[in-house]
Amino acid sequence: MERRVTLQDVAERAGTSRTTAHYVLTGRDREMRIGEDTRRRVLRAANELRYRPDLMARGLRTQVTRTIALIADAVASEAYAGDLVAGALAATAARGYLLFVCETGEDAELEEALVEELLARHVDAFLYATYFTRDVVVPAALRDQRVALLNCRAPGLPSVVPDEVGAGRTAAEALLSAGYRDGIWLVGEPAPHVVASVERLRGIEEALTAAGVRAAGTVPCAWWPESAFERFGALLDDGQEPAAVICANDRVAMGVYQALAVRGRRVPDDLAVVSFDDSDLAVWLHPALTSVALPHRELAAIAVDLLLGEGGPPPGEHRVPMPLRRRESVAVRG
Amino acid sequence: MERRVTLQDVAERAGTSRTTAHYVLTGRDREMRIGEDTRRRVLRAANELRYRPDLMARGLRTQVTRTIALIADAVASEAYAGDLVAGALAATAARGYLLFVCETGEDAELEEALVEELLARHVDAFLYATYFTRDVVVPAALRDQRVALLNCRAPGLPSVVPDEVGAGRTAAEALLSAGYRDGIWLVGEPAPHVVASVERLRGIEEALTAAGVRAAGTVPCAWWPESAFERFGALLDDGQEPAAVICANDRVAMGVYQALAVRGRRVPDDLAVVSFDDSDLAVWLHPALTSVALPHRELAAIAVDLLLGEGGPPPGEHRVPMPLRRRESVAVRG
Repeated sequence: MERRVTLQDVAERAGTSRTTAHYVLTGRDREMRIGEDTRRRVLRAANELRYRPDLMARGLRTQVTRTIALIADAVASEAYAGDLVAGALAATAARGYLLFVCETGEDAELEEALVEELLARHVDAFLYATYFTRDVVVPAALRDQRVALLNCRAPGLPSVVPDEVGAGRTAAEALLSAGYRDGIWLVGEPAPHVVASVERLRGIEEALTAAGVRAAGTVPCAWWPESAFERFGALLDDGQEPAAVICANDRVAMGVYQALAVRGRRVPDDLAVVSFDDSDLAVWLHPALTSVALPHRELAAIAVDLLLGEGGPPPGEHRVPMPLRRRESVAVRG
Repeated sequence: MERRVTLQDVAERAGTSRTTAHYVLTGRDREMRIGEDTRRRVLRAANELRYRPDLMARGLRTQVTRTIALIADAVASEAYAGDLVAGALAATAARGYLLFVCETGEDAELEEALVEELLARHVDAFLYATYFTRDVVVPAALRDQRVALLNCRAPGLPSVVPDEVGAGRTAAEALLSAGYRDGIWLVGEPAPHVVASVERLRGIEEALTAAGVRAAGTVPCAWWPESAFERFGALLDDGQEPAAVICANDRVAMGVYQALAVRGRRVPDDLAVVSFDDSDLAVWLHPALTSVALPHRELAAIAVDLLLGEGGPPPGEHRVPMPLRRRESVAVRG
């Protein structure tokens, strides 16, 4: 690779001093009473040599590199969490920052090594992210850095998470407002260690109770299409007659759709379906699925704003609303 | 934020000269005949002060920063291309490099600005990536840099792309070897500007012709579930009796499954289905879909290996095989 073009090179080609070239290139030529002819020679030389100001050298002087690191367990590897990366990329670029992305695969040793590498490169601030919402232990070396937690939580640290309790209420109210009261089943096993599971259930419970309604039961399948297909199919074959279901996520809803299809039954006439995530699947299913959105892009944008705001991110948990996307999977009950 | 701990700080605490501390911390204490006692004092001081070697300062001296940039149109935003990012992250981390990730949204001006920002930070090498395989024009400022093209191509530059012609042959042979000859339909409109479309069709054509078979026809739907649902459904309602289909991608296959389901017909007994991409959908569909995999992780790993190999990436197009993932959507014909 070629040697880097320096300010000295520009000055030599322009026939000026290094200081004069510096003043011109940093826009201080008027202030320093540098003549128009000299100014033009410097700019022409910089252009001809394709001179680039050395942000690394400047970073060493100013201790600001305008780089941020996104340290994640697996956001890029997990297809449905890619919007966390995309949101962070857009928000950092909009503020003129570049983004390092690192995945740790939850390997604490690798994580520590990555943090060291990033600190050695003078990263200005850190986003610490997880692909599903959970409580985390942030590596010690990050505790005295500027850091915001994205889609995860730790005591005393600023964090941005989706409002899953509100999402649970929203899903239940979508059915209640369409006239459903009896025969509302929950599909997807409760997972006590998963924030989304615990909080969505709490929200659903709150909304149903407020309306004087009780869920008919829970289908304890794993949160994947195949398991939902099997277990929800078994429920139907058992002679149960669910009127509506709240699925743990869109993948579970896909399994429910499949279980209905092979039995010749239809959404929404034979069964109303609401779900969580609003992933691509929600649009792809037929009929399209009503789902409460996980606003990953917005989470990331808010986290970046907090991180780079005056004085750094305020501590505490910032909850981002999860909006309902109404589609064709809930018929109004006659 | 605290002031950065410098080599000087370590030397002062250890009661040695800066040079001595430097030799110890770079492992040259024996060579420089530094006593064991001094060595221990320096290491203890570095540890107590949590001293980190300044890679940015070192980078300025050596012009090596051990950072790579991934410049992409939209790989993180596009859920099914996330494995390109994940693959690049894993491969760069394995070699001790950090990865900047940038998305340009195909905005040439933004792209140029990003390249300048990255050059100003002394990035060692560049991965230039697209979320679907296509021909690109690489920004001028990258042409004299160490660069490898990931999932895209440009004349004279090293590139890593999937072998889509081979994939087309593989898909057709999966049907031929299961005994299908008549009634093989292609589902998905040909897209003359999309490499995957043109090359997959060429491979399919080659394999069918070699077996003395002609495709029964093409269903010209868009490459999305809803369009495939409509158009393939119309074909069935038209009285056509396809025996097997080769779908443009897994999303198209999803639409085909749905069109069959509402007509009470089944995969694979009523119709054999093969597809391309091997996305999550392939496993989630019921029955699971036989699909030719787009090996995004492998593409990225190979591109990183070429990029960081001795002497830089060799020019030319590197084609990565696309393997068949056999599942339950093709029954052997009796």
